[in-house]
Amino acid sequence: MQILPNIFEQLTNSLRTLPGVGPRSAQRMALYLLEADKREKAKNMAKTIQQAVEEIQHCKKCRNYTDQEICVVCENLSRDDRLLCIVETPSDLIAIESSGSYKGRYFVLMGKLSPLDGIGPQDLGIDLLLSLLSATQPEEIILALSSTVEGEATSHYLSNKLSNVGCTISRIAQGIPTGGNLEYLDTRTLIHALSDRKRLAQSAHSL
Amino acid sequence: MQILPNIFEQLTNSLRTLPGVGPRSAQRMALYLLEADKREKAKNMAKTIQQAVEEIQHCKKCRNYTDQEICVVCENLSRDDRLLCIVETPSDLIAIESSGSYKGRYFVLMGKLSPLDGIGPQDLGIDLLLSLLSATQPEEIILALSSTVEGEATSHYLSNKLSNVGCTISRIAQGIPTGGNLEYLDTRTLIHALSDRKRLAQSAHSL
Repeated sequence: MQILPNIFEQLTNSLRTLPGVGPRSAQRMALYLLEADKREKAKNMAKTIQQAVEEIQHCKKCRNYTDQEICVVCENLSRDDRLLCIVETPSDLIAIESSGSYKGRYFVLMGKLSPLDGIGPQDLGIDLLLSLLSATQPEEIILALSSTVEGEATSHYLSNKLSNVGCTISRIAQGIPTGGNLEYLDTRTLIHALSDRKRLAQSAHSL
Repeated sequence: MQILPNIFEQLTNSLRTLPGVGPRSAQRMALYLLEADKREKAKNMAKTIQQAVEEIQHCKKCRNYTDQEICVVCENLSRDDRLLCIVETPSDLIAIESSGSYKGRYFVLMGKLSPLDGIGPQDLGIDLLLSLLSATQPEEIILALSSTVEGEATSHYLSNKLSNVGCTISRIAQGIPTGGNLEYLDTRTLIHALSDRKRLAQSAHSL
């Protein structure tokens, strides 16, 4: 028997669609939002979700999220125009930004090639990318896609597609992550880490 | 530097107030809600939260959540009027209902005595409880409160307050949980489990 009203079930089901939220956490969240002193907060949350979904759109230049025509990164005049980093999602962009090690421009694909999910090149804004490239003419394009089957396929597709743009195309290094133990690494990571090894010094007597 | 618009920050902060949601999950949820094919879902979620908070009120009889005057349990004529179970929250009521082992009535305190948080008897609907008791005159009141300091204090307060209502007052058993290993149990649980032991059979020769 259903003990709580239908709208409560709807609320639980709705919260359950959020990533990482199972039936128990969804129920806990719903009950939390209904607590007497949380109801104002809940109303504000509803308003914020509504507003965010209405106002946040894609940057006309790089497809990053923005509530303006052009996003904050594209608007920033102090960034290095010679570098363009291609990422899959705004969260990847945020991750790279918080590393603080990159000051160039970005282009956000908003996904990766995935024929099974019906995501083809036309969904990744390749036309916009090409027009951005001909407008800004960077010296290097850095492919910073994930190291999954789809990510690899997308990298491969892009490096082919952009081969005649007339600039260096690179991709971020693959290898052992910082703090990683060799014994726990998977074989493919080890293969990459070995084949992409970096020379530190030349020994006096070569073998 | 803030990369995404302010409203995105607001959305993340708002989601972060949900129980069990840290900064990383909040960001993940916010980015999820903004995905092109999730925006309708996000709007519906906003509408559902708004509607739930507006429509769900307390049952006039037992303080359980309902979108009517009287909740589903109170309205159900087939339940046993001789038993009244007092619980802290609607989630406790749901937990007992899903055990399927109780068919009586409920009263939901919507909290427990907690002087530090400023929660006193007036916040637990004691007046409503007393009028419910005089109207329904159950044979037994079962205190099903949590086994925490505040829960114990509330049980103690209630058993005093209800001592002259003229019915049995009991509380749910304390002991080893199903599937529990003795070696991992805390001392207080073991003390309760030993002192509340249940006689299984009488040995022929008494010691």
